[in-house]
Amino acid sequence: MEDRAFDALVVDLRGADLPRVWSLLVTVFGDLAQDGAAIPAAVLGQIVAPIGVRPEAMRVALHRLKKDGWIDSQRSGRTSLYRLSAQGRAQTVAASPRIYASEPPAREAWLVLTDPAAPQPGAESDLWLTPHMRLSSGSPAGAEAFATRLDPDAPLPGWMTARVCDAGVVALSADLETRLFRLQDRLPADLTATQAAILRVLIVHGWRRIVLKTPQLPDHVFPAAWQGPACRARVATLLERLPRHSPEALSLAA
Amino acid sequence: MEDRAFDALVVDLRGADLPRVWSLLVTVFGDLAQDGAAIPAAVLGQIVAPIGVRPEAMRVALHRLKKDGWIDSQRSGRTSLYRLSAQGRAQTVAASPRIYASEPPAREAWLVLTDPAAPQPGAESDLWLTPHMRLSSGSPAGAEAFATRLDPDAPLPGWMTARVCDAGVVALSADLETRLFRLQDRLPADLTATQAAILRVLIVHGWRRIVLKTPQLPDHVFPAAWQGPACRARVATLLERLPRHSPEALSLAA
Repeated sequence: MEDRAFDALVVDLRGADLPRVWSLLVTVFGDLAQDGAAIPAAVLGQIVAPIGVRPEAMRVALHRLKKDGWIDSQRSGRTSLYRLSAQGRAQTVAASPRIYASEPPAREAWLVLTDPAAPQPGAESDLWLTPHMRLSSGSPAGAEAFATRLDPDAPLPGWMTARVCDAGVVALSADLETRLFRLQDRLPADLTATQAAILRVLIVHGWRRIVLKTPQLPDHVFPAAWQGPACRARVATLLERLPRHSPEALSLAA
Repeated sequence: MEDRAFDALVVDLRGADLPRVWSLLVTVFGDLAQDGAAIPAAVLGQIVAPIGVRPEAMRVALHRLKKDGWIDSQRSGRTSLYRLSAQGRAQTVAASPRIYASEPPAREAWLVLTDPAAPQPGAESDLWLTPHMRLSSGSPAGAEAFATRLDPDAPLPGWMTARVCDAGVVALSADLETRLFRLQDRLPADLTATQAAILRVLIVHGWRRIVLKTPQLPDHVFPAAWQGPACRARVATLLERLPRHSPEALSLAA
């Protein structure tokens, strides 16, 4: 695709604000090299520069990620190679199913109440409404909790859904949905491997910022304005239409 | 029925402890003269003396009830007549349906949750588990409360049922159930009008002390050991077998 037309696509998908560079790079490593493959600095630059990241900002972010133990680096002739560290890879692999899922994270939601006089710890994935009231994707064991499966057709009151997902994240979901809709509408057939990689990174990054802030509960417990299901579906459709290339392939394509 | 055999029945039904005399008299007025009919002091004595109330204790209790505005008194020749005051009658009539009901006070129980950040007042008959969690016999109006009908076949956890009815009242219900069972088993056919009135008073009083301490919720939200349904059924059966006589009839029978 011709550069100027592609830049317009990128700006529309990215939005007005530049994402945090280190976070964007986490997405790049996660989408391109989750298996621990090495990415040459030049390939990273080819992906993030069109998104608006200056070379100096990329270097600073890579330094930070290395210092945090998320990536390792290695010299190779005149260039540097970067790959996920064991720790960075473990965390990437852990988050991956949530980011790339085409299905909602849970089918059922349960309201679980425990003795207010003796708060009980629940699963980490539970969403706590108060120290003794939580939403869970499953029914707890034991007789000391009251649990009722929530009817998907009965809307929850606003004070509950607001705790499931705050208004800021709901607004992000509506914004991303609009951008993904426009991209789906205009997606050209003549993308280079690097262009496909850039779009993949922006799509995954936009959704990742949203989905990792939400509890693993079915969509029916979210606020009415939540656009998660539409985002999830569009992300899946778009990623299917945008082939993933290996860092080596991108390196050769450059 | 012969006095000594009757006394044994009375002691077994009453239990080891003498009820509070003023409270027992409230039951007598409620069962015998809810319509505001006058009861001569002699008739009151004939009913409460066999239960173990001394004449002086009866006089003190009548004085207290009069001072509290529950009853009025009136001289009539050489005796005194007592009747419920307008206020005493209003409260007696209000409590009566609960005491004499042969059906549970509610068929359904709902768990209702309101915003912990903004506690909402509910119906007075609701049972509050916390300032934002209550059990109600109906579904609340409005979208700001979460409400779910409780499944009668799914037992509630102990910390919930203990708030519906505390262990002391549950124990009273089991104790009364046993006494009522024995009375039902032995109830003679040859009772005098006064003997029938005494048994009615003890039955109603025993149940009244329990039922007025419980919320108007269906039995399935009560602790497993709650004997309310059995008590309610035995009270209804026994009262049907023990005819109610007017104060005049009792006065003539004496």
